Amino acid sequence: MEKVKVGVVGATGYAGAELVRLLIDHPDTELAIASSVSFGGKNISTVYPGLRAGGDIKLADSWEGMPDLCDVIFASLPHGHSEKIGSACRETGKLFIDLGADFRLEDEAVYEEWYGSPFQNRQLHSEAVYGLCELYRDEIRGALTIANPGCYPTSAALGLWPALSHGLVSAEGIIIDAKSGVTGAGRGLSQNTHFPEHNEGFCAYKAGGHRHRPEIEQTLSKITGKEVKVTFTPHLLPVNRGILSTIYCRAKTDLPEALRAYRDAYGNETFVTVLEEGEHANIRNVKQSNSCHISLHMDEHTGTLIVCSAIDNMVKGAAGQAIQNMNIALGLSEGAGLKAVAPAF
Amino acid sequence: MEKVKVGVVGATGYAGAELVRLLIDHPDTELAIASSVSFGGKNISTVYPGLRAGGDIKLADSWEGMPDLCDVIFASLPHGHSEKIGSACRETGKLFIDLGADFRLEDEAVYEEWYGSPFQNRQLHSEAVYGLCELYRDEIRGALTIANPGCYPTSAALGLWPALSHGLVSAEGIIIDAKSGVTGAGRGLSQNTHFPEHNEGFCAYKAGGHRHRPEIEQTLSKITGKEVKVTFTPHLLPVNRGILSTIYCRAKTDLPEALRAYRDAYGNETFVTVLEEGEHANIRNVKQSNSCHISLHMDEHTGTLIVCSAIDNMVKGAAGQAIQNMNIALGLSEGAGLKAVAPAF
Amino acid sequence: MEKVKVGVVGATGYAGAELVRLLIDHPDTELAIASSVSFGGKNISTVYPGLRAGGDIKLADSWEGMPDLCDVIFASLPHGHSEKIGSACRETGKLFIDLGADFRLEDEAVYEEWYGSPFQNRQLHSEAVYGLCELYRDEIRGALTIANPGCYPTSAALGLWPALSHGLVSAEGIIIDAKSGVTGAGRGLSQNTHFPEHNEGFCAYKAGGHRHRPEIEQTLSKITGKEVKVTFTPHLLPVNRGILSTIYCRAKTDLPEALRAYRDAYGNETFVTVLEEGEHANIRNVKQSNSCHISLHMDEHTGTLIVCSAIDNMVKGAAGQAIQNMNIALGLSEGAGLKAVAPAF
Amino acid sequence: MEKVKVGVVGATGYAGAELVRLLIDHPDTELAIASSVSFGGKNISTVYPGLRAGGDIKLADSWEGMPDLCDVIFASLPHGHSEKIGSACRETGKLFIDLGADFRLEDEAVYEEWYGSPFQNRQLHSEAVYGLCELYRDEIRGALTIANPGCYPTSAALGLWPALSHGLVSAEGIIIDAKSGVTGAGRGLSQNTHFPEHNEGFCAYKAGGHRHRPEIEQTLSKITGKEVKVTFTPHLLPVNRGILSTIYCRAKTDLPEALRAYRDAYGNETFVTVLEEGEHANIRNVKQSNSCHISLHMDEHTGTLIVCSAIDNMVKGAAGQAIQNMNIALGLSEGAGLKAVAPAF
Repeated sequence: MEKVKVGVVGATGYAGAELVRLLIDHPDTELAIASSVSFGGKNISTVYPGLRAGGDIKLADSWEGMPDLCDVIFASLPHGHSEKIGSACRETGKLFIDLGADFRLEDEAVYEEWYGSPFQNRQLHSEAVYGLCELYRDEIRGALTIANPGCYPTSAALGLWPALSHGLVSAEGIIIDAKSGVTGAGRGLSQNTHFPEHNEGFCAYKAGGHRHRPEIEQTLSKITGKEVKVTFTPHLLPVNRGILSTIYCRAKTDLPEALRAYRDAYGNETFVTVLEEGEHANIRNVKQSNSCHISLHMDEHTGTLIVCSAIDNMVKGAAGQAIQNMNIALGLSEGAGLKAVAPAF
Repeated sequence: MEKVKVGVVGATGYAGAELVRLLIDHPDTELAIASSVSFGGKNISTVYPGLRAGGDIKLADSWEGMPDLCDVIFASLPHGHSEKIGSACRETGKLFIDLGADFRLEDEAVYEEWYGSPFQNRQLHSEAVYGLCELYRDEIRGALTIANPGCYPTSAALGLWPALSHGLVSAEGIIIDAKSGVTGAGRGLSQNTHFPEHNEGFCAYKAGGHRHRPEIEQTLSKITGKEVKVTFTPHLLPVNRGILSTIYCRAKTDLPEALRAYRDAYGNETFVTVLEEGEHANIRNVKQSNSCHISLHMDEHTGTLIVCSAIDNMVKGAAGQAIQNMNIALGLSEGAGLKAVAPAF
Repeated sequence: MEKVKVGVVGATGYAGAELVRLLIDHPDTELAIASSVSFGGKNISTVYPGLRAGGDIKLADSWEGMPDLCDVIFASLPHGHSEKIGSACRETGKLFIDLGADFRLEDEAVYEEWYGSPFQNRQLHSEAVYGLCELYRDEIRGALTIANPGCYPTSAALGLWPALSHGLVSAEGIIIDAKSGVTGAGRGLSQNTHFPEHNEGFCAYKAGGHRHRPEIEQTLSKITGKEVKVTFTPHLLPVNRGILSTIYCRAKTDLPEALRAYRDAYGNETFVTVLEEGEHANIRNVKQSNSCHISLHMDEHTGTLIVCSAIDNMVKGAAGQAIQNMNIALGLSEGAGLKAVAPAF
Repeated sequence: MEKVKVGVVGATGYAGAELVRLLIDHPDTELAIASSVSFGGKNISTVYPGLRAGGDIKLADSWEGMPDLCDVIFASLPHGHSEKIGSACRETGKLFIDLGADFRLEDEAVYEEWYGSPFQNRQLHSEAVYGLCELYRDEIRGALTIANPGCYPTSAALGLWPALSHGLVSAEGIIIDAKSGVTGAGRGLSQNTHFPEHNEGFCAYKAGGHRHRPEIEQTLSKITGKEVKVTFTPHLLPVNRGILSTIYCRAKTDLPEALRAYRDAYGNETFVTVLEEGEHANIRNVKQSNSCHISLHMDEHTGTLIVCSAIDNMVKGAAGQAIQNMNIALGLSEGAGLKAVAPAF
């Protein structure tokens, strides 16, 4: 089989660099071109010396030409920059997978509220598929425009799907307390991610109002068929990678039934593991893999089901799921180029 | 003024060592004797080389004789070992401050449920004061037996007191998602606190059933005058020190009124700071200090008041509050030997 | 081609677990059996939950039967336990690769001095090949018993080989100041690798007398053809993985000539990269890869060539090089199952 | 006694903030004024929330007026900015202690080579005292202009003084392999100190040419009375605080005699501890204290004395030694406001 030609726009941001790293190992693809506004003309090893060994890609300075050259284009850009690339891909009939926020929200008013601008290409929005692979695999097959889900929303939705779809918990009063590694804040410098000011520290940020909340609510509302509101608080951990969402729901069932429902839902999934009773999901065990680990805990005292959902924010929460989406959309083996196994340390 | 003679039982556990470090700097006390079952006969610097400079205390191998020799005895021991020391102190009329769990729970049945044995000295239990300094200062003055609160319960109770005492939130459905530094797990070795297996990791533990939950509920029930149940989930952070509790309550008021109530409650307190609107409490800013930082956040979307409460688990959550209790009980300056200022990094 | 059947003895130690992880992805091998004295009968995921996804290997409790069942056996055991396995493999004509110390030292007296016991099978020792792949590739081809080099010796020898073999530096007065991640100290618990006592700390250990020193000297002596003595000081970094050796030599040449010699020596090597002048080798850039990064620096002021040599102690310093040895010995593609690319973060 | 009035110029850099923190606890001083070009007009808690509790100092935007208002002025500024403040202090007869580099080097040509500009006030340079307290206590007493030593030079000089002054090692071929916490790189943002790009990493920087080398050589040359050249390589550790210098010297004596000489030299010093044979100096044990821990190791095999010297770069390597200098210069108790005890974790 001829290899799939892939282009990566925004290859020197963290999610872009992770995409490059994973694509280097993908058996069915060829990384044809990678671009970076900041480092165009330079080799990617000047930014990430560890990537030198992979042939040391010379970066283009824009995405021009990619829709003609490539079969698939991934964009990992700040919001507002992906729609025009998506439109160009649509015209040439190429698969476009957006790791940014441009196509995640279906409701334009909600998008405008949180991102400050209207949709640029409404037709394309109406065609775009939300690429949460385990939930929307059928829609993803053959799609041309895919919105890769946000990291927190991936972790939250995988953690809640079986419970909500089977009515095992109330859709009201759900609380998602999420903790992310620092790569989630990106490559841009800031005082609070300067090593001496983040190391040995821990705090919430944007408590009560983070952009990923409406994206979470959109998915949960679709699952239940009615409007779901959640309380969502992100925190920044002093680690590089990983998201753990601790999710609190009012239980309508007991732990054995909940475990059964989660095992049924994910039993055939390569990348989602439901842990044994008594185990707790740990970001360490999904690091650098496309896996999601889910553990369930029942506080019988208050009737609360506690779901711990762990992913690597850069893999299942970004570049890995994007590749999984490509694999599904193009009919490749869904796990090609992706690992479920995490390093032990 | 003659210096207060102090004894420390269990001086080589983490809380005990922190006590020793703080007492070395206390202007009004003299560390007369420190004991350690594991290291009796050795100098404390063989365990903690950083403590060498403080005169290098030679450790006794038991607490025998302390109630006669000392004015105050602190014990930092596994549960079940403090009652007899407390009884001996009571007989000689000396102040006893227990950093362990023996005297924290007032209800013997609850204690037995969580700790597996009945009270040894019921009379002493009936006299013991729960030493949460900011709430029970009056009872602590002149007390002879003080139960130093647990680290999580201190963080949770300080974060909830103003809201619950003023009825600003519902006493039902409170969720406490708490994250602690590894010193909270103590000096004993375990695979999950072995450096390579904890570093870059993060998970909950004992979700749905941790011993500190009944202690939290005891305090909140006293505040409200009725039985309060909470959901409490502790997590272990890859940092040495600090606890951040993120607390979710159903709000009955708005943010400005909540802030006003917290400022009123803590305005005169040296060791509790209510942050400005928009700031988030961070364990980094209370590290190695006796301070508690509290930030309030309102999720108007769901009517949820989010309280972030940060302390150093080893200081305000253990050794620092124990000294604050001693200061209050003996009529010393409440802040003597304690810092409110944390290092910037 | 039929897959090579592989056995791993000692699969739950750190190097053993890393071997398992890498072998799961190896295109030409099948992990037929893995054993663990401590966890025999259990699944490997009970020890390393991240490995669950790889089919979750059930651990055997001994290596019995492996020499018949497998084409290759790797052992990752404390010293003294590998010789008998090697002997059994020799009898069945199977490739044996020892990640422990049993076959590394050629001089029995030196071995006995540092490890406390004599050789068990002298004939096998005389046949065993020291598997430093880039230096001894020819000897490794077709070998049946391979001593996988130690982590520090790999880093030091790769850093010094071109300089010493071309006489660019004096063989006298070489100083190797090496810093390792904590996985190098293994999975066994100890107070100084307990998270709160290692985190934010840093120190040397065994300064002046570490077992890897004679192994380093053996290789350097072979390169120069005369006895080389070095000063070697290992340190333990508060990171999981990686070794950086900073090596000081009395220069007999200038920086450009040294760089030329290193580039000549390693220009065709997949796994060794000589950095540009001005760059400094960083363990971060070789993490989880089989790469070695080398940077050269000249202190003209004192005539000292400074070589920085970085590897991942668990990959190029253990499991990765072991697989590279297998690949060479069996005539597989040398890089099969191994990555040169490191994650960017 | 009336309190000494102190001014701090550059209070929001890391060394400045540490000075502020330590001065808040100093029993004999009053922090009269603190300035910051970047944050003038704001409270210091807006930069370092942990300092809020100390009365929350409002920052001045320049040092104007300080020489009149204060008894002592500390400046913690980039090089080139301290001379004019020192000159102004000299005119009003006030003590000036410079934590920057302006007065450290005595030879103007050397200064110009490394810092790019000539001396501004030669007379003041001729009067300035190099404030390495344990070596130059007599000169510091009564001095008006004190150059506070650099962090690396403090660690190196304390580690070498007894050996060099007694001729126990050769003054030739000394190699200093130094490892520093990230606070040493300051508060300014850079990609390589961005959390995800420094965490789990380790490398040397400026190998072969760092500005602290001439400062080290100046001190060692004074000790020996002849020109000493050293090889000095700094590295950046993934920790906040601490410097460990591993120093290699050609021994002219044995370990017992070396230990005796070091114990003689430092036996009466509060802030320097010579560890027992077999112990290794660890930055963890001097953290947040003004202590220096020194361990000696003999590699008899090559005749190399290995000295490990550990300090906290922000305390003994900056703010703490600055206060020690003030205490000596003004005749206060040398240890006032300074701790020798480090937290155990």
